[in-house]
Amino acid sequence: LAGEKLRVKLGIDPTSPNLHLGRSVPLLKLRDFQDLGCDVVFIVGDFTGQIGDTSDKESERPMLSEQDVQRNMESYLDQAAKILDPKKKPEIHHNSEWLEKLSFQRVGALADSFSVAEFTARENIKKRLNEGKRVSLREMLYPLMQGYDSVEVNADVELGGTDQRFNLLAGRTLQKAWAQEPQDILMTNLILGTDGRKMSSSWGNTINLTDVPNDMFGKVMSIPDELIEGYFVHCTRVPMDEVKKVVAEPNPRDAKLRLAKEIVTLYHGAAEATKAEEYFVETFSKGQVPSEMPSVQAVEGMALTELLIAAGVATSKGEARRKIEQGGVSINEEKTDDFTVVISKQHDSSVVKVGKKDFFRIVF
Amino acid sequence: LAGEKLRVKLGIDPTSPNLHLGRSVPLLKLRDFQDLGCDVVFIVGDFTGQIGDTSDKESERPMLSEQDVQRNMESYLDQAAKILDPKKKPEIHHNSEWLEKLSFQRVGALADSFSVAEFTARENIKKRLNEGKRVSLREMLYPLMQGYDSVEVNADVELGGTDQRFNLLAGRTLQKAWAQEPQDILMTNLILGTDGRKMSSSWGNTINLTDVPNDMFGKVMSIPDELIEGYFVHCTRVPMDEVKKVVAEPNPRDAKLRLAKEIVTLYHGAAEATKAEEYFVETFSKGQVPSEMPSVQAVEGMALTELLIAAGVATSKGEARRKIEQGGVSINEEKTDDFTVVISKQHDSSVVKVGKKDFFRIVF
Repeated sequence: LAGEKLRVKLGIDPTSPNLHLGRSVPLLKLRDFQDLGCDVVFIVGDFTGQIGDTSDKESERPMLSEQDVQRNMESYLDQAAKILDPKKKPEIHHNSEWLEKLSFQRVGALADSFSVAEFTARENIKKRLNEGKRVSLREMLYPLMQGYDSVEVNADVELGGTDQRFNLLAGRTLQKAWAQEPQDILMTNLILGTDGRKMSSSWGNTINLTDVPNDMFGKVMSIPDELIEGYFVHCTRVPMDEVKKVVAEPNPRDAKLRLAKEIVTLYHGAAEATKAEEYFVETFSKGQVPSEMPSVQAVEGMALTELLIAAGVATSKGEARRKIEQGGVSINEEKTDDFTVVISKQHDSSVVKVGKKDFFRIVF
Repeated sequence: LAGEKLRVKLGIDPTSPNLHLGRSVPLLKLRDFQDLGCDVVFIVGDFTGQIGDTSDKESERPMLSEQDVQRNMESYLDQAAKILDPKKKPEIHHNSEWLEKLSFQRVGALADSFSVAEFTARENIKKRLNEGKRVSLREMLYPLMQGYDSVEVNADVELGGTDQRFNLLAGRTLQKAWAQEPQDILMTNLILGTDGRKMSSSWGNTINLTDVPNDMFGKVMSIPDELIEGYFVHCTRVPMDEVKKVVAEPNPRDAKLRLAKEIVTLYHGAAEATKAEEYFVETFSKGQVPSEMPSVQAVEGMALTELLIAAGVATSKGEARRKIEQGGVSINEEKTDDFTVVISKQHDSSVVKVGKKDFFRIVF
């Protein structure tokens, strides 16, 4: 390949409307390749998103409709553009371009390259089978699709999380079957969510690239201390020797403040990051609001009264209504005495205070 | 379904050019349904034939090209028509009609109805996996295709050999997913080939519906005695009580003569069957030609000299040529002294005699 530009591929399935910090890890790596002058191929998995990858799952995931996926991916490219170099346009594909057209006959030919044993030997699949949990044949088709994407774009390198090993190798297998030079694969580490579990949209523990500065800052401040170093290494551009120094500081809170500022700077710029830090120190650090609190899952259009019941701070709509009317409830430090308030996406990550000591965060 | 006609489905993949006696078992059952006034749906598996069913196999089978399948199925319907009622035309479909058009998306939805565990629990698949033999993902797609055929033709009953249990049940699964009444399934017994192994085109042990009367008669006469009763039950119309009587006769050869005559009568009529019996008794029974002899696999265009080497009756082309030129070689009792003779399909089942005591049968 001497003298030729490497084609570096990264695909992301729009299984939720927001890219989160976990997705930023391979995206930052993709940006590195861009800076090195490689051709970058970004694939929006609008087709694969419907089929559903369970590489990182402990159970089946439902199939998504085309509409779900369309809605989810509305601002996907804008979100990815926060990380990629705006001056060097990446090559962008939606994998429905080719996967939608593949005939059953062709699918059969793809399937011929894979054995059942290699699939059932995958760690999370083996675990599920051993536990008697259902693994659907649909899940076995997923790696074929991702692998075939590599054939279509003729990738030299593919990036992905460590959970993507099988899918990345599937690309090599199919490229060989199609007489292409098999791609190299580069796996990035997975990072954990604000609650210390795997970062996942379905668990409400994500930090999203679209989060407003104050929320992003606050969420980073809420991660368990043991995650600080990993976040520095995988989600920021701080050099490794500096990271070592920062995490060696006696108070983890200082390291976390630096981390939050670095991350907010990446997505909103230094000025916004400074403001977010000031806001955080002002409100949370002075003991007015605790820096850690439970999250409560909300749904679009939910009444505030229902949310209070879901949070366990009221046992009936009547009680919830009284608390609101008596002025004991505030959202992001703004008193709310109208019990007809309806919760919507714009409340995502807002902090609700009930009485003097009950706090929770709204998540969608 | 009171008052409505049952739709009874049978599908056969054209994986070889000839229907053999094993295939006649469900076909005879299909004829029974026809005689009972049911609607009969015969499916030529031109699409599934390319993907390949391994239900009855101990290993993977190669994918066939569209051309292979086209060639194989040239006279398939004529062959099936030997058994079905000519006055009641069956509904005939080629499953490429609908399977060719299925999108990958739709395949994913089909695959969603099946679990990996139920597939790997299939007896022959489990055995292969346990022995460390490869099972391809392509093989897992096969039952989806056959099952989807049932959805397309809205089958009430599907016929198939006992090895087809999984595929037949797949039809029920998919019909349920498509909100159809699931079909009943009726499984017919498998019969063994002339060498006592499973009857299979790849093993040269089949009795084909297209075999000329003398060959068909001779092949039936060559089956192991213990197969006589099964052949009577599954491949003839002889009533069960009569079968019991015939097989109870002291000399199995008499039962076999009756069996051969019954089978040849089914496909060539009584007059041809009588002639074939006379020919058999004349030539084979009088000790001129043994009734059992080894089979030698031939390929189209092979020289007679090469065939003699393959049969182990000559060790070099020179020796083979000498034997032929000296008049020691005959094919179907016709002396052949031209050493340039080339073997072709028309020699299938011919008996070659070399010298006074070496006999073998040519098979393709």
